[in-house]
Amino acid sequence: MKSNCLWVILITLGLSAQAQQDDSVMIRQIANEVLEHGKVYDNLRMLCKSVGARLAGSPQMVKAEAWGLQCLQQAGADIVYQQECMVPHWVRGGKDIAYYKTGSGKNVPMDVLALGSSVGTGKKGISAPVIMVNDFEELEQRKAEIKGKVVFYNYHFNPRFIRTFEAYGDAVKYRVTGPARAAAYGALAVLVRSMSHATDNYPHTGGTHYAEGGAAIPALAVGLQDADRLAAAINKNPKVSVYLQSNAQNMPDTIGHNIVGEWKGSDFPESVITVGGHLDSWDVGEGAHDDGAGCVQAIEVMRVLKQLGYRPRHTIRVVLFANEENGTRGGIKYAEEMKRQGLHALFALESDAGGFTPRGFSFTAPDSIQTRLKKLSPLLAPYGAGDFMEGGGGADIRPLRDQGTVIAGFIPDSQRYFDYHHSRNDVFENVNKRELELGAINMAAMIYLVDKYGL
Amino acid sequence: MKSNCLWVILITLGLSAQAQQDDSVMIRQIANEVLEHGKVYDNLRMLCKSVGARLAGSPQMVKAEAWGLQCLQQAGADIVYQQECMVPHWVRGGKDIAYYKTGSGKNVPMDVLALGSSVGTGKKGISAPVIMVNDFEELEQRKAEIKGKVVFYNYHFNPRFIRTFEAYGDAVKYRVTGPARAAAYGALAVLVRSMSHATDNYPHTGGTHYAEGGAAIPALAVGLQDADRLAAAINKNPKVSVYLQSNAQNMPDTIGHNIVGEWKGSDFPESVITVGGHLDSWDVGEGAHDDGAGCVQAIEVMRVLKQLGYRPRHTIRVVLFANEENGTRGGIKYAEEMKRQGLHALFALESDAGGFTPRGFSFTAPDSIQTRLKKLSPLLAPYGAGDFMEGGGGADIRPLRDQGTVIAGFIPDSQRYFDYHHSRNDVFENVNKRELELGAINMAAMIYLVDKYGL
Repeated sequence: MKSNCLWVILITLGLSAQAQQDDSVMIRQIANEVLEHGKVYDNLRMLCKSVGARLAGSPQMVKAEAWGLQCLQQAGADIVYQQECMVPHWVRGGKDIAYYKTGSGKNVPMDVLALGSSVGTGKKGISAPVIMVNDFEELEQRKAEIKGKVVFYNYHFNPRFIRTFEAYGDAVKYRVTGPARAAAYGALAVLVRSMSHATDNYPHTGGTHYAEGGAAIPALAVGLQDADRLAAAINKNPKVSVYLQSNAQNMPDTIGHNIVGEWKGSDFPESVITVGGHLDSWDVGEGAHDDGAGCVQAIEVMRVLKQLGYRPRHTIRVVLFANEENGTRGGIKYAEEMKRQGLHALFALESDAGGFTPRGFSFTAPDSIQTRLKKLSPLLAPYGAGDFMEGGGGADIRPLRDQGTVIAGFIPDSQRYFDYHHSRNDVFENVNKRELELGAINMAAMIYLVDKYGL
Repeated sequence: MKSNCLWVILITLGLSAQAQQDDSVMIRQIANEVLEHGKVYDNLRMLCKSVGARLAGSPQMVKAEAWGLQCLQQAGADIVYQQECMVPHWVRGGKDIAYYKTGSGKNVPMDVLALGSSVGTGKKGISAPVIMVNDFEELEQRKAEIKGKVVFYNYHFNPRFIRTFEAYGDAVKYRVTGPARAAAYGALAVLVRSMSHATDNYPHTGGTHYAEGGAAIPALAVGLQDADRLAAAINKNPKVSVYLQSNAQNMPDTIGHNIVGEWKGSDFPESVITVGGHLDSWDVGEGAHDDGAGCVQAIEVMRVLKQLGYRPRHTIRVVLFANEENGTRGGIKYAEEMKRQGLHALFALESDAGGFTPRGFSFTAPDSIQTRLKKLSPLLAPYGAGDFMEGGGGADIRPLRDQGTVIAGFIPDSQRYFDYHHSRNDVFENVNKRELELGAINMAAMIYLVDKYGL
């Protein structure tokens, strides 16, 4: 019995050591190929510089889809196709304008961006006294004062959070529900301090949601330096007024597409591993980190595995989702189609936290699978992505959870993300080639490991 | 016996859990203070924008010393003083010029920087045929062809290394010894492909060493895009010639200073914990990552611990070293003074790998101390610096090793470092505020832990 046990242990340890050795070699080959011959950076340059910003429903999004189809063909997909879905169609309609009037009657311009889904002000704009509230508690305390005014939410991005997405989670309610809550008390419009801890003055847009049946009032994000100036002006003289003008409007829904590149699996062709990012971006900047980076990394996963002669056991799909920013319609459609086609969505990985240096992965999965996945962490640690966390995924792949899919998010370092997020500053020049490549390497390694071992 | 054992275990576990809890709280306080009220970013702005580049022996270095003394006073040092040492005095003498002549007789300009310690070409410059070698092996094979020519070392920074300092370690010999080796075969001058994998064309300078008794020939670094162009031109027509002009010269040694801020320890005042960076930089750019970042982080260590009312057991010294780039004279002087004063240099930590997001620390220490230090890693992991490695330190604190000092290096993420290192591009704008602050937080935590527990 004793020797039998030892035998089992030896075989187990021996095989596992050999497998680990093979995996290390494979991941090293992935890294070499991406670092020496990667297309990830050039693909991103093309997307950012030839297409640029690409809001769902915009003409640029049509160009982006064509770019995606071509990249996936070049990466070696067996087939490349579109999945049609209806997407919201919001337009900014030109430059947003804002200034505040000081006690001495001087107009001080502010750098602003209408929030996604915001209504416009009309051509004449809105002039009204401004009321500054630092949080919702203050909004409630001063609700009687709000009617006929512009509410300025001056809630600060909390610098204490080490993972900056937690600061975003803490602050974003002022952008998402702040306008609706101010409208309920009779506000004419809303200014929101940008969701960022940047040191510059770029305003950061992003979606807002009006309440069902509630008034829809114009809502604009303001740059941090201008927010500080406005706050100082109000603190000096509470009777500051502002002027806002925006031509934003919501048009009828229009047609968008997920872009899919498929690589048939040899053992389990009906079992699908999805890796993706979202192709749409806000209408300013170039959507470089959000989420051009995720798209080109997902494409690179297929390119590098093809290039190395790998033969997947499961079907691997690279998906560039149609509409993360203002609707998640692409992700919903993708999950629906998976079900309709009777396929098994085994695993889905999204990269939608920027093209920064890797830190790890996060998973939404049953405990037993979390435990097994965590054993893979030492293989990725040498490439920077050894931190395996629970509770992750991505907005576009979350709809797959209803089908029991294990979903995962690639986690890059988050310190710089909100400097760029949803701003004119999210451009190609702010992405570092090697950081972007290391993300692709770790994602390719993860897809390889999940494909090889299953879940 | 059994219950006795349990008792010991319980006490041990209990105390250690309580200590760990206290340490977590303290490190959280350090983080809050730095993230909310840190001076590290503003101090770096002042150094970069009011002083700028500051080569040892230059007038700017005198301004930098004054900046350092003031910052340390403001950080709350008990005493602040200078340690005088002689430093090399090399001057660039103006703009370096280079072009190559194509087959059609066209002069193509190249962006170049004379290497530190390089001699100049004289006012007339040097015109000569160029011979390209990809490595030292090729230099040896073609040594008979070298006399009267300019040698162009086109050795590429190897992208396969995940830690970019390994690529630097692999390539830097072409800069450090390449000119001397080419001179031995009669070369008139040397061009070296920059030690970088950047996507831009900034040349990267850095020190070179002529052989004792050997000829000193002009040596210049060339930007990567220009290096590629020159290589292509040579591959097309091996008879390409180049023109180089540089006014570089080595002057007699001059006076420099380490800048020291001291905080007396309550229990072991004669036992010194050193934390520092080097104040000197190359003469281009602003020395922001190399090593303004390390200086302001070291200063912040003292500021934050003072601010939190901490009372150190050992004497803590913040040291801004005088001359890392071309002589390490500051570090040598510091170790000599430590010995002369009869002090015990317990621990020294240097930050000299850029102000990037933290990854960990590296230590040069006996195994038993490595083991104990590694137990601290879980306290720093939440702040990004959980990777504890062996074999680290810093050029300025290495001379302390002779005294048995445990030396450590702060290890930030290395992906972007060689984009900026020793180039005109190493400017304040390329440092991210939060990444810089997180480095200071982890360094302060490390100094606190070593001070509290000893080694």
